[in-house]
Amino acid sequence: MKRLHIGLADRGYDILIGSGLLDSLGRLIADVRTPSKAVVLTDDHIWSLYGDRLTAALGDLPHRVLVLPHGEQTKCAEVYAQALSFCAQNQLTRTDMLIAFGGGVIGDLGGFVAATYMRGIDFVQVPTTLLAQVDSSVGGKTAIDLPEGKNLVGAFWQPVLVVADLDLLQTLPSREQAGGMAEVIKYGAIFDSALFAKLEAHPTWETLTPILDEIVYACCDWKRQVVERDERDTGDRMLLNFGHTFGHAIEAHGRYTDYIHGEGVALGMVLAAKAGIRLGVTPVGTDDRLESLCDSFGLPMTDRFPAAALTAHLALDKKRAGSALRLVLLRAIGEGYVHSLPVDEVLSLAEDIGDAN
Amino acid sequence: MKRLHIGLADRGYDILIGSGLLDSLGRLIADVRTPSKAVVLTDDHIWSLYGDRLTAALGDLPHRVLVLPHGEQTKCAEVYAQALSFCAQNQLTRTDMLIAFGGGVIGDLGGFVAATYMRGIDFVQVPTTLLAQVDSSVGGKTAIDLPEGKNLVGAFWQPVLVVADLDLLQTLPSREQAGGMAEVIKYGAIFDSALFAKLEAHPTWETLTPILDEIVYACCDWKRQVVERDERDTGDRMLLNFGHTFGHAIEAHGRYTDYIHGEGVALGMVLAAKAGIRLGVTPVGTDDRLESLCDSFGLPMTDRFPAAALTAHLALDKKRAGSALRLVLLRAIGEGYVHSLPVDEVLSLAEDIGDAN
Repeated sequence: MKRLHIGLADRGYDILIGSGLLDSLGRLIADVRTPSKAVVLTDDHIWSLYGDRLTAALGDLPHRVLVLPHGEQTKCAEVYAQALSFCAQNQLTRTDMLIAFGGGVIGDLGGFVAATYMRGIDFVQVPTTLLAQVDSSVGGKTAIDLPEGKNLVGAFWQPVLVVADLDLLQTLPSREQAGGMAEVIKYGAIFDSALFAKLEAHPTWETLTPILDEIVYACCDWKRQVVERDERDTGDRMLLNFGHTFGHAIEAHGRYTDYIHGEGVALGMVLAAKAGIRLGVTPVGTDDRLESLCDSFGLPMTDRFPAAALTAHLALDKKRAGSALRLVLLRAIGEGYVHSLPVDEVLSLAEDIGDAN
Repeated sequence: MKRLHIGLADRGYDILIGSGLLDSLGRLIADVRTPSKAVVLTDDHIWSLYGDRLTAALGDLPHRVLVLPHGEQTKCAEVYAQALSFCAQNQLTRTDMLIAFGGGVIGDLGGFVAATYMRGIDFVQVPTTLLAQVDSSVGGKTAIDLPEGKNLVGAFWQPVLVVADLDLLQTLPSREQAGGMAEVIKYGAIFDSALFAKLEAHPTWETLTPILDEIVYACCDWKRQVVERDERDTGDRMLLNFGHTFGHAIEAHGRYTDYIHGEGVALGMVLAAKAGIRLGVTPVGTDDRLESLCDSFGLPMTDRFPAAALTAHLALDKKRAGSALRLVLLRAIGEGYVHSLPVDEVLSLAEDIGDAN
């Protein structure tokens, strides 16, 4: 088991990474907190696979389980209110705990419930997808969606513990595995050319599995460094949005059903590389290298986006500050940076690469 | 105009207290922030009285107004989601602003919207009730209700400016004026025997009006001291809950329609004094002195509460920590303190004073 400490003054916590950790969950929680009871938020897929093991692992910690439908639709205001009422009905108090047992949707929703129920209670993340293990469970960003857009509502709220059991990743649908790889590739692209090269040397899920612990650890460690420097997402942390500005537009274009998040990010990274090349800041061929690595992990790279579909969704973007958009671009593989552009220029850039793609 | 600075490291802000400040709102905001647009949250009562003046006061700051029904029912998850969508539909960005223009309901709801929309945007409070001016607009507690209980959901989020125009208080229904006085009396009871004595010397709204600026300032200044010491409500800040444990139970008993918040607090303070007397910690007669002052400001003091009604609502209380409840009691007028009691003892105490009242 690898242990990574996220140092955020009094709100620091550990991320535990390893095989078979799920069965020790109760003991791992007891090492950091002693709640009198817990509410578990999970989804129907995860619960049917691992519900019995989780219940056994929690031992004598009294807990009630709210099993939600899987999928992004669960991350909405209505289910949020339902989960809050579930906590209240089970008389969860400020010294009790919420356990988010699932992928990014459950983690984001559960984190936001924990952040706001009684103005904040402890929560433990047990991320069950690669995406959640390397990205959404590190850094304290919690969120729900609005009909008007993804992740438009949320809070910064740190878990007291993250338990990332790598074994759970082996039962993921291959599409989810690939989706998570998009974020792994992202870390290589913006921070770590050695990680990127290592992925190119292990370019399939099967060849990567034996070194998955070090890969997940490396990603979490990069995110740790960024989060420690910039907890509230005003500067450096923005680098993590590489691929996300275009990616969110692509997800929205697909009505959040055609593409999973990682697929949007993968396509968004390639588009961001193309944008950087057009602007003369990214080396020619970077887009091909990204595209090839994404493709080798099974991320779909062949779709075409009408420029209008991209631009329509770029206007309402959290990263928009006044009349400028901050895009994350690459100076090289391993070197991302924030590039501010007037919204109009981003839109015309999107039209270019939208057509070009 | 009096100016009180709330010093919370990088999240400090000013409370401005005076007559006629509403008409200068745009200029006062421009002194601290330069948003490109704003969303105003308000209620139908306030908007019919002051909407034209607010719009004029905002001058050339583009703003859209969401007018919500007045009353506690508005502080729910559905209206919260509606307000968030309103912000998104008007493309409010992270550098824009929300203005909460109303009483405690609008302030709590608007603050929670601002705390969570895009994980937090600037907001300005323009409290229009005495209760909001002396209590809910100081300290950064934001909240909505659940069907299961009041204020069960929220976040700590500080405004960037509070503008308390005392003139607005003169159009309040007398019941609202009295409700606010309950919180004013509370500050005297727990912190400030001189303030309490001053209220006893000006025991009606009419006699108090000429010195309202110093009264509101004194209350905000007490709350400031507590909030600066204990922003996240883990210790000292709990003193501000004097009267609230029983008060919330009384409000719930009245289904949040029979009693306004201040009426619940007033009755709760008298009950807490009676509880302290029973426990031998509060001087005999303190309950009568509180009751007399509340009564002189028109707070209803004659209702009877079945003990069962009190106890039924005490079990789910935010201040409950595990199996103990922390009650705020008085050692004397001007000297509140936190008294931990097993839940069972609180319930039997509630039965005693419920019968006795």
